[in-house]
Amino acid sequence: MTAINETHDPALRSWVASANEQTTDFPIQNLPFGVFSRGPGGPGVGVAIGDQILNVSACLEANLLESDAAFAAAEACRSGTLNALMTADRLSVSGLRLELSRLLRDEESGGSGARAAASLLVPMSDARMHVPADIGDYTDFYASVDHATNIGKMFRPDNPLLPNYKHVPIGYHGRASSIVASGATVRRPRGQTKAADAEAPSFGPSRLLDYEAEVGFYVAGSNRRGDAIPIGRAEESIFGFCLVNDWSARDIQAWEYQPLGPFLSKNFATTVSPWVVTSEALAPFRAPARARGADEPSPLPYLFSAANEEEGGLALTLEVLLLTEKMRADGAEPVRLSRGSFADMFWTPAQMLAHHASNGCNLRPGDLLASGTVSGSSDDSRGCLMELTSRGAKPITLPNGEERCFLEDGDEVLMRGSCRRTGFVTVGFGECRGVVESASK
Amino acid sequence: MTAINETHDPALRSWVASANEQTTDFPIQNLPFGVFSRGPGGPGVGVAIGDQILNVSACLEANLLESDAAFAAAEACRSGTLNALMTADRLSVSGLRLELSRLLRDEESGGSGARAAASLLVPMSDARMHVPADIGDYTDFYASVDHATNIGKMFRPDNPLLPNYKHVPIGYHGRASSIVASGATVRRPRGQTKAADAEAPSFGPSRLLDYEAEVGFYVAGSNRRGDAIPIGRAEESIFGFCLVNDWSARDIQAWEYQPLGPFLSKNFATTVSPWVVTSEALAPFRAPARARGADEPSPLPYLFSAANEEEGGLALTLEVLLLTEKMRADGAEPVRLSRGSFADMFWTPAQMLAHHASNGCNLRPGDLLASGTVSGSSDDSRGCLMELTSRGAKPITLPNGEERCFLEDGDEVLMRGSCRRTGFVTVGFGECRGVVESASK
Repeated sequence: MTAINETHDPALRSWVASANEQTTDFPIQNLPFGVFSRGPGGPGVGVAIGDQILNVSACLEANLLESDAAFAAAEACRSGTLNALMTADRLSVSGLRLELSRLLRDEESGGSGARAAASLLVPMSDARMHVPADIGDYTDFYASVDHATNIGKMFRPDNPLLPNYKHVPIGYHGRASSIVASGATVRRPRGQTKAADAEAPSFGPSRLLDYEAEVGFYVAGSNRRGDAIPIGRAEESIFGFCLVNDWSARDIQAWEYQPLGPFLSKNFATTVSPWVVTSEALAPFRAPARARGADEPSPLPYLFSAANEEEGGLALTLEVLLLTEKMRADGAEPVRLSRGSFADMFWTPAQMLAHHASNGCNLRPGDLLASGTVSGSSDDSRGCLMELTSRGAKPITLPNGEERCFLEDGDEVLMRGSCRRTGFVTVGFGECRGVVESASK
Repeated sequence: MTAINETHDPALRSWVASANEQTTDFPIQNLPFGVFSRGPGGPGVGVAIGDQILNVSACLEANLLESDAAFAAAEACRSGTLNALMTADRLSVSGLRLELSRLLRDEESGGSGARAAASLLVPMSDARMHVPADIGDYTDFYASVDHATNIGKMFRPDNPLLPNYKHVPIGYHGRASSIVASGATVRRPRGQTKAADAEAPSFGPSRLLDYEAEVGFYVAGSNRRGDAIPIGRAEESIFGFCLVNDWSARDIQAWEYQPLGPFLSKNFATTVSPWVVTSEALAPFRAPARARGADEPSPLPYLFSAANEEEGGLALTLEVLLLTEKMRADGAEPVRLSRGSFADMFWTPAQMLAHHASNGCNLRPGDLLASGTVSGSSDDSRGCLMELTSRGAKPITLPNGEERCFLEDGDEVLMRGSCRRTGFVTVGFGECRGVVESASK
């Protein structure tokens, strides 16, 4: 695991004033990486600080980076995606974060480095954010036992959880091409559906459009095809984390998913939050893996390590908010639908990653793994409408009187995440949002 | 559909003598594209002609291409993958094939162009073939109703075919990173399996390793996310075809696949034949879509076109051969295990592609779609060992007395494909082969 170091010091403040505000997701202790563009220029790599972006390549060109490690990592940022940075060794990335942290600190505000860096800041409001890596493969897991149980109950009331669930981190391959950055609109998909009482299926716009609130993580480094990644080395293969909305058309899913799993019900769009919060920044917020009950099996040896049991989890709180078209027109604020804890997941990120490579499947830098819907045991922690409304049987009433079973055209779904711990500065993930557009004509 | 043109003329012969042999897969009527390297040089794009490769970029540099169309397509070959060629418009690709065909014809053998081209040939025996495109996403279908029925019978004797099968082209996302070119070894995967009579699962080398004989096709062009590709435009979105071995660990699959489909049972390796036989070269071999029985549903309108019904199929014969370690030591020839017809598939390639994009999923040039196991109704047309041996219950006896239920270490699986039609020259696909290595220690 990554140790706590000086970049986590809660006493640190930045000369970027907005980074010191209580409400920011991006204090100087965070420094997540992202890919942005402004105006006609090509995309570049930046780190978020308050409401500003510091252009990493520009820092390199302005000779603001001193150590060999930081220099090498910043060189890797020149390509305009995070893939090369995710290929670089961890010490380089850590060295770059340390130098950027020092450059942005309050006590440096009078120095020449800080003055030069200040001229390289880009206001977030002027920037467009991109999917931060060329994602070679995207894998979606199903790691919340509460989600799996809640969904399973709808199909198999007597036997909600399948026999493999507590032994295997269940996952499937998602679609890389349709991963979009927060803010991209999502067109309601058309597809084949069949009502239970219909004789034959029909084709048309999905009527049961849903979101799924998930946590994603990007792969650092790679393994050769045929070689596994042991659980003890899985943490170092995780570059950092983001939020994921795995948009899902439940009516298409119900009809298509047997026997090979979800396909067109998912691959029309997946939204990611654009900032990648590094594993290093999250070191203070690690949590024990979910404890196994007396009646639950221990993880098989390839999924077990003492370190993972102790701190393989992550105390990340994930909120889902909704803003309907009417609320937007009325100037209302988004309303929170749920709040879940990523620490409640049955499998840790390291277990998912080690399982993924356990058969020799080669992971590549920039691959995205997502957790599956983050749901907890309480009603208000359910991370999708399918669960919150019991598949539409119990509509949600919003403060303005509108009801929702599933998403309507014009609905905006927003996800926010944060990690909090007494004695440390709260680290946030930025927004993961998207508006539903009507189906194509 | 692509019309028959002068490149299909059966009277054409090449000054490359091996291209005129009855047994070649690569007569002058074929001219498939591939990516090869020789020695320390980087990969380049070539076309196969007999037992030789003509380097397309070298033809460009030697000023052997005259038309603007051919020039543009050859320019797209400079990158060392086929992605740019798959992005180029069809007329350019067709123009390049026409010029290469003219350059390689027997009657040109005395000309300066042919003499120059002869100096640019690379013997296949000196070349290493690569996966021909950067495959952004790989999707595997399940389009043989005979395969789906045979497999279904093993799990659900009374109800082998699920209710959605004849309405939906069932597919799932596969793994792009572990796609390898013919010849790469395949390490036996480890994984979780659970015997029916075992109390708990265990982790170890798969004991039920299988192949699946499939046909793959690469996407040409792209659609914007949110936009469908109508069935009437699906054929022009198919650049060309190859053979695919979807290696499968049946014991891992049986334990992991519910409810989200195959994952580690498949993603350890997928082998493709390296030559992409263009849709244009295959124009003479198109066949009607599989006729629907009176008790079978018609395709929904988004999967139906008169042209697809008439010639959406492809009369491609696919053979699987096995060479065991003992046979290799004894100098024996590979033995054929099965021979299936791709024209027997329940869904055509155009239907699979149109279905894939019907929800607005964006396809990209170089994406690979595969058909699923090609099996027919007869016993000797079953395209995997799971079917041929009834899940190991009926072992195959090989000519030398060895028996096989599933693949053993050292076994080499070879797939060959060809399209034949009276009045036309047979077009082949080259080999798709791989040897099973023992599991990692």
